[in-house]
Amino acid sequence: MKQPVIRVGIVGYGNLGKGVELAIRQNGDMQLVGVFTRRQPAAVQIATEGVGVYTIEELDAMQGQIDVLLLCGGSATDLPEMTPALAQKFTVVDSFDNHSKIPQHFAKVDESAKQGKNIAVISVGWDPGLFSLNRVLSQAVLPVGETYTFWGKGVSQGHSDAIRRIQGVADAKQYTVPAEEAVQQVRTGANPSLTTRQKHTRVCFVVAQEGADTEEIRRQIVTMPDYFEPYDTTVHFITEQELREQHGGLPHGGMVIRSGYTGEGQKNSQIVEYKLQLDSNPEFTASVLVAYARAAARLKAEGATGCRTAFDIAPVYLINMSDEEIRKKLL
Amino acid sequence: MKQPVIRVGIVGYGNLGKGVELAIRQNGDMQLVGVFTRRQPAAVQIATEGVGVYTIEELDAMQGQIDVLLLCGGSATDLPEMTPALAQKFTVVDSFDNHSKIPQHFAKVDESAKQGKNIAVISVGWDPGLFSLNRVLSQAVLPVGETYTFWGKGVSQGHSDAIRRIQGVADAKQYTVPAEEAVQQVRTGANPSLTTRQKHTRVCFVVAQEGADTEEIRRQIVTMPDYFEPYDTTVHFITEQELREQHGGLPHGGMVIRSGYTGEGQKNSQIVEYKLQLDSNPEFTASVLVAYARAAARLKAEGATGCRTAFDIAPVYLINMSDEEIRKKLL
Repeated sequence: MKQPVIRVGIVGYGNLGKGVELAIRQNGDMQLVGVFTRRQPAAVQIATEGVGVYTIEELDAMQGQIDVLLLCGGSATDLPEMTPALAQKFTVVDSFDNHSKIPQHFAKVDESAKQGKNIAVISVGWDPGLFSLNRVLSQAVLPVGETYTFWGKGVSQGHSDAIRRIQGVADAKQYTVPAEEAVQQVRTGANPSLTTRQKHTRVCFVVAQEGADTEEIRRQIVTMPDYFEPYDTTVHFITEQELREQHGGLPHGGMVIRSGYTGEGQKNSQIVEYKLQLDSNPEFTASVLVAYARAAARLKAEGATGCRTAFDIAPVYLINMSDEEIRKKLL
Repeated sequence: MKQPVIRVGIVGYGNLGKGVELAIRQNGDMQLVGVFTRRQPAAVQIATEGVGVYTIEELDAMQGQIDVLLLCGGSATDLPEMTPALAQKFTVVDSFDNHSKIPQHFAKVDESAKQGKNIAVISVGWDPGLFSLNRVLSQAVLPVGETYTFWGKGVSQGHSDAIRRIQGVADAKQYTVPAEEAVQQVRTGANPSLTTRQKHTRVCFVVAQEGADTEEIRRQIVTMPDYFEPYDTTVHFITEQELREQHGGLPHGGMVIRSGYTGEGQKNSQIVEYKLQLDSNPEFTASVLVAYARAAARLKAEGATGCRTAFDIAPVYLINMSDEEIRKKLL
């Protein structure tokens, strides 16, 4: 059965929005119909010829032309307002990643989406998203055990920003690194109790302003509460050119490991590991958003309404193949 | 919301059925109500006190007492008959693993289940099952790329049986081993074309009968078409005691690796790896069956009918936690 083309709009054109634009090209059943921005549309140059850039206010007039809106704003201030507001008029997908605030975000978005008779898929990406899915699947299958999530090696934007706010810092990149010893211990099935310090280390590459006190910068980084103090942190001072050439990307990744036990006396160790190794965090997150956009469009077409997370969506909705084909080729 | 207890019956009491019995104990919302066998019930000793062993014919009289039947027969001859037959009267789950015959099994089971107004979940376990799920999810997210499935290190029952049929062999255990070089190559994102021989090797531990011609046994193993000829195969002759002490378990596992590309000119490599390392293959498969039994019972309670695979079932149906709880704790 040939699926109809899904007409997609992108709201917000930062790294994530740009990733979505490129991901849409990899999906033959998707078509980009517009990019919506809070900037001056004329100042935004997008990669797709023949597709318009519009203000967010112009969305209202385009309701009939868009099947799914991919909301590519930030979780701190954009999405808490934007997702519930737009869910009243559009089927939407977001990557809201403020874990502790997901229940309240879900409640607000669910109410709006039901009012608008739309589907809203929230908190998709890799964590929350695919990692969450693996936490649920592996705990469902192995109820006796422990789940460990490790992040990295990868660039944390929040931690890089925190360093940049220190006086005397011109620029910085921070890598979160899973502690190899802890990962190996978990993989043996030992189910260790691990402190924050034992699970991850932090490695910082910092460009100091001319004449800045690098020892003072280092001290301010390693003692910064929450961000760095609970971790073993290494600080390297490098040149602007080195930062640009060697640390220009946004790689990331990590692992969800469920270490469970089954059988008589729980004697058999069963280890499930899900691992991501990503050259580009925003492009991968964008690719996940696009797969869930397909699911959102299909759910909407079935007449479903309300908020969904990755937990609520069967895998069959995500892929551009028929049910028969995936049973034949991928089961 | 407190879920009602799910009353489970086990059909077939081999390694898988025994694993299901133990897995049910790890799930507070499940209760074993009976084991059904083609043997003399009096000759079957089960691990759960107070639960009866019955003939398969006695199932008919127990329709009102069972929510889900877990079918633990073999895929060669048992399940092709058993699943469609029992789906007319019960909600059923099987682990049918003959990949090439899944479409016809699905069609037969779907018809029966719809006639009986039941849910039937087929082909769950780890491959088909969780591995299939990961093939679909990772291809949906990364449509440009290659998927690689490696099995092992683990015991293949089919290959062990094939060796046991050779004249002069008293007993044997065969391990399927993923070729480390191939796995490492895939993990780099190189997307190699790999032959059967390059992907896996086979290692056999054989107990020869007294006076048997071990060189002839070795020759017959390594030249056996389909089973061993396409692989680099190593044969070790050991004593019965060594086999029992060092190769008594049924470990298995493997990896599904999707190596995809995203971005401008597909320049960014994105690697998704799902890995299992199982001390007990039948106990893990049983644990997957039990999680899908929960899903089957819930789908049936919603009034759904027909055949389902792992692709059709949202993760939320699999776990013994409320939707609110998993959003709060696992998203």
